[in-house]
Amino acid sequence: MRTRPLKVALLGCGVVGSEVARIMTTHADDLAARIGAPVELAGVAVRRPDRVREGIDQALVTTDATALVKRGDIDVVVEVIGGIEPARTLITTAFEHGASVVSANKALLAQDGAALHAAAGEHDKDLYYEAAVAGAIPLIRPLRESLAGDKINRVMGIVNGTTNFILDKMDSTGAGYQEALDEATALGYAEADPTADVEGFDAAAKAAILAGIAFHTRVRLDDVYREGMTEVTAADFASAKEMGCTIKLLAICERAEDGASVTARVHPAMIPLSHPLASVRGAYNAVFVESDAAGQLMFYGPGAGGSPTASAVLGDLVAVCRNRLNGATGPGESAYAALTVSPMGDVVTRYHISLDVADKPGVLAQVATVFAEHGVSIDTVRQSGKDGEASLVVVTHRASDAALTGTVEALRKLDTVRGVASIMRVEGE
Amino acid sequence: MRTRPLKVALLGCGVVGSEVARIMTTHADDLAARIGAPVELAGVAVRRPDRVREGIDQALVTTDATALVKRGDIDVVVEVIGGIEPARTLITTAFEHGASVVSANKALLAQDGAALHAAAGEHDKDLYYEAAVAGAIPLIRPLRESLAGDKINRVMGIVNGTTNFILDKMDSTGAGYQEALDEATALGYAEADPTADVEGFDAAAKAAILAGIAFHTRVRLDDVYREGMTEVTAADFASAKEMGCTIKLLAICERAEDGASVTARVHPAMIPLSHPLASVRGAYNAVFVESDAAGQLMFYGPGAGGSPTASAVLGDLVAVCRNRLNGATGPGESAYAALTVSPMGDVVTRYHISLDVADKPGVLAQVATVFAEHGVSIDTVRQSGKDGEASLVVVTHRASDAALTGTVEALRKLDTVRGVASIMRVEGE
Repeated sequence: MRTRPLKVALLGCGVVGSEVARIMTTHADDLAARIGAPVELAGVAVRRPDRVREGIDQALVTTDATALVKRGDIDVVVEVIGGIEPARTLITTAFEHGASVVSANKALLAQDGAALHAAAGEHDKDLYYEAAVAGAIPLIRPLRESLAGDKINRVMGIVNGTTNFILDKMDSTGAGYQEALDEATALGYAEADPTADVEGFDAAAKAAILAGIAFHTRVRLDDVYREGMTEVTAADFASAKEMGCTIKLLAICERAEDGASVTARVHPAMIPLSHPLASVRGAYNAVFVESDAAGQLMFYGPGAGGSPTASAVLGDLVAVCRNRLNGATGPGESAYAALTVSPMGDVVTRYHISLDVADKPGVLAQVATVFAEHGVSIDTVRQSGKDGEASLVVVTHRASDAALTGTVEALRKLDTVRGVASIMRVEGE
Repeated sequence: MRTRPLKVALLGCGVVGSEVARIMTTHADDLAARIGAPVELAGVAVRRPDRVREGIDQALVTTDATALVKRGDIDVVVEVIGGIEPARTLITTAFEHGASVVSANKALLAQDGAALHAAAGEHDKDLYYEAAVAGAIPLIRPLRESLAGDKINRVMGIVNGTTNFILDKMDSTGAGYQEALDEATALGYAEADPTADVEGFDAAAKAAILAGIAFHTRVRLDDVYREGMTEVTAADFASAKEMGCTIKLLAICERAEDGASVTARVHPAMIPLSHPLASVRGAYNAVFVESDAAGQLMFYGPGAGGSPTASAVLGDLVAVCRNRLNGATGPGESAYAALTVSPMGDVVTRYHISLDVADKPGVLAQVATVFAEHGVSIDTVRQSGKDGEASLVVVTHRASDAALTGTVEALRKLDTVRGVASIMRVEGE
């Protein structure tokens, strides 16, 4: 084994960073044996240098992250600051000064992954980011490497623990959204400002990253259709139950049937209770992958938290260190397929639509005509009503999102349709 | 991209090999883009050269596998023959003549993994074998690489599709073992001679491989305790249901609580219906991994079959080809921890024991005394009886296998115990 240590600079020492530092210290011998050389924490960049950080030598702590990544003797920079800046500049500076990078930064990777990969490639350095998607769950490496000889057709997952906790709570207790969110906040599963989670921004970033890797195509954050789960109601869960379904916030990356284009989207959807994703409880994450040869695979585990995220970061750290000792780099960006990323209108799926309608003869015929005119075929209709008001629940066959949108617009114009109570996609059948 | 192709020799062209060849041809452009150079099928060694193999150039077919691996211009040998010989000699010959190896051979890896890794290392070549365990499910790479910065404490999985199909059938229909086996055979899930599957030999080989990788310790096939599932009865399933459990044939690799030793075993066990492994249906495989930092992870998918196994083989092929272009090798054997592999007697778990006893006063006291004398603490007892015969179902707290064995021996000697109807371990709680 090489005795000269590989030097690691840690950018950020919050929940994840402190756990990375702790494991690097307590498991130093194991890491050295697995890498083939010891690893040494050479510096820790933080915003608040005065905070006491147990187990971290105060002499390593600095507020000057830029100087740290510019030192020139750093082998690997571990970036767990999050956000776009200063993380982006620090990572590119790290490459320029000879370091490889391990990052857990989903927002940055989703927005600027291509440029960062290019910077890594230019300097012949590694950029690894297993921790950016689904925390501890090995997902990026299996997609990039284990399935490198296969053709992936769909990646569908629960990639946000906060929203899964809320939806699971609504499902199991019948609570409304606000009540479930309050509990998630009280238990620390939701942040004070939960927007990034509940509006699907976090999941959309992960969808962009996953789609890019799965389809060997650049998928920008703007390419991902995004719909949050704040409008999901207890009534929606009741409807889902009647269908033998539950509701999950899903990130879905799909290859079109003709193989020439892909789509990526995040939205709440009904999935059958028999689907493996339906039984993913609490804040757990799980990602379902369908490919030509392997068939259906699922990866399940904790999607967030200091320790799980640190596990993913350290796995990458070991890989990057091994590569460095080998004088090699791992697989970089693979975007050779350059498939078209189609808009949401091209997505084909099934829909569950609840309408409030007038309770009089001919309404069903009128509604059915609108569906037919837009080429959306109806699978089942359930009508219930009293006191002159009725509700119609329509479940469609597969249709494009554009056709469904046109249908709904036309339905809203019917005098007999008082309102569209909810529209929910049905997935995983 | 390099234009000179990497040359692949395929040893074996059965269900898996023909699928590997097919995908290499149909997905040649994708593989080339992902590897950075084209791959060319340079030879196919078979036993029966006259059989027509669609899509394979007859000029590539040979019965002389030895000459093929000795050619000297082969970059990667893909071994999908199975069995110990001639596979072992062919693989070592391949290393000697400059090739890296991708294998799907669980029996060989379990028996001679250390020697094969040593041969690969001596010649600075790769030995990859993702397909040897759990078919298409990415498992070896996640354990070896994604979790390389973590400490794995337990790997528990359903790694044999045939037995899972049979047990699932018994569970869902109430069928007995023979009836379920007959159906598995008729549907092609079980081989004409199902011994390797139903007696747990196949799962034990996989357990040895998984334990070795998970604990960075050499675990020989002989180190793995093995118990088949041919004795599992419909009555056992009824007992399991009463406990809120089902029965699975599990491969369990565990680190002892003191961290200094490990165990590996294969046997049928009751697991709670709430455990993610309980809902693994049909011939699917799934492996549950518990580690210090990541927590609980699960990997799920098809554990066998031509296409799924080919997916795993091709993922390895891409990785090995990339390494070759990089002039590097991937991680080799990691056995530095060299932990003690303890015998089955040291395994600590819970037990579900059904006894046929005489229905008279004092029997329960006698039985309870035997458990107490052997230091096995009882959790629950359920007694039912009629016509002078009774059955006692005892569920214990955690105890060593040695203590339980001693208990059962002593129970058999009691006049009032007519027989020990079944002993089943209880896992996953």
